[in-house]
Amino acid sequence: MNKLEDKIQHFISKRRVAFLGSIDSEGYPNIKCMLFPRKVEGLTTFYFSTNTSSMRVAQFQNNSKAAIYFCSTTFFKGVMLRGNIEVTQDQTLRDMLWEKGDTKYYPLGVSDPDYSVLILKVKKDEIARVYRID
Amino acid sequence: MNKLEDKIQHFISKRRVAFLGSIDSEGYPNIKCMLFPRKVEGLTTFYFSTNTSSMRVAQFQNNSKAAIYFCSTTFFKGVMLRGNIEVTQDQTLRDMLWEKGDTKYYPLGVSDPDYSVLILKVKKDEIARVYRID
Repeated sequence: MNKLEDKIQHFISKRRVAFLGSIDSEGYPNIKCMLFPRKVEGLTTFYFSTNTSSMRVAQFQNNSKAAIYFCSTTFFKGVMLRGNIEVTQDQTLRDMLWEKGDTKYYPLGVSDPDYSVLILKVKKDEIARVYRID
Repeated sequence: MNKLEDKIQHFISKRRVAFLGSIDSEGYPNIKCMLFPRKVEGLTTFYFSTNTSSMRVAQFQNNSKAAIYFCSTTFFKGVMLRGNIEVTQDQTLRDMLWEKGDTKYYPLGVSDPDYSVLILKVKKDEIARVYRID
């Protein structure tokens, strides 16, 4: 772990939301504000829960290329990491990421077919490209 | 002007920043937080000033597809509009968008070769796709 990675991890840990970038069927970039990822593994893997029926799921199934962006609009600083997203309904993951109150989004519970998990795996050597928080 | 357009324009007018989506040379979506556009023409055209040498300019010169996203993280609502971006150094536009203090970014003034304008033209019928602020 180097100092920059520590700084980025600290910066990310202070955020409430994440911006997720995707590519739509017409080749346009799309952006959506998401709740902070349900689980974060260092700077390598980010997990989101989402509705299977959502537009993003269809986009990532068609094109896995993604970006996650964390931003402080107060200090006008941000960090973007690129990667690829896998959409899964793996039950172990769905159980792990389930939170109280999620029936609001997934009325049928942890096995709701409309409950999916997005796994964003950051590109290899991506951190080397992010040379500062700006 | 219909009611939804009014609502979107009002929502946008309350924002301090805009998120700009682009596609990089490897085909990944990119996201960057930008100062609110220097000029807004309805929901059809947005103008940003930027450094010619910036990574975004290179990206838009290579692929003009873009998205602009306005978001309230407090109320968790957002509006995204897709369009295409033209990079220009048209002097009339540069003069028009110049603001006091811009020499901080463009030391040589309104004719600084590093001062460019991004013109985002929203796709035709894009508003019809944005059926609500969410």
